[in-house]
Amino acid sequence: MNYTPVNLKQKLAQFSEQWSPKIIAEMNEIQFKLVKLQGEFVWHDHQDTDELFMVLEGTMAIEFRDGKVELSTGEMFVVPKGVEHRPYAQQECHVLLVEPRGVVNTGDSGGNLTAENDVWI
Amino acid sequence: MNYTPVNLKQKLAQFSEQWSPKIIAEMNEIQFKLVKLQGEFVWHDHQDTDELFMVLEGTMAIEFRDGKVELSTGEMFVVPKGVEHRPYAQQECHVLLVEPRGVVNTGDSGGNLTAENDVWI
Repeated sequence: MNYTPVNLKQKLAQFSEQWSPKIIAEMNEIQFKLVKLQGEFVWHDHQDTDELFMVLEGTMAIEFRDGKVELSTGEMFVVPKGVEHRPYAQQECHVLLVEPRGVVNTGDSGGNLTAENDVWI
Repeated sequence: MNYTPVNLKQKLAQFSEQWSPKIIAEMNEIQFKLVKLQGEFVWHDHQDTDELFMVLEGTMAIEFRDGKVELSTGEMFVVPKGVEHRPYAQQECHVLLVEPRGVVNTGDSGGNLTAENDVWI
């Protein structure tokens, strides 16, 4: 077995692209992904799964059709499956995403912010 | 929908018991639990699931039969299912555990460190 811990800051230093989740760990079939956000994402949902956001550094918001949640460092929020949402961040925000294998960042909405999936760092 | 974020520090301030995981969020059937560790836990495993440890504050180690991993703030490690392990922490360490619903902290090993399960804060 490999007894090396996963260090979040070291992993975050390994990429600079925004809106492009990188996998750092897997527990059963659940993936832990780092992502750097800035600006406004596309409206989308995930029909088959909830999605957990945990802010590691910075602030962000997740807009819903009927409200929004604002998240700062050390805060998390679970977006329920099937609920349309749009993440945004005025300044770059570093986030840990937790969701099952195979989730595409833009759901079924597509567009040029759709990231390559299943990229490990 | 409830648009209140889960604040890790606020949740950690709500309890002082050690070795007694408290649930703060659920994503699909995966639970996110806070736990305060100090001293030496019992050897145990979880036959049906991996278990993710993420250190929020402090340092801890997870001992295995053939080695160990040391974790500091901002580091995580996934203990694979079925692998015997023993967490310990010289000074109190605050940890986020991620695992499916229904996991008992001591696995099948039992003993007086077995915590009440499924406690939300």
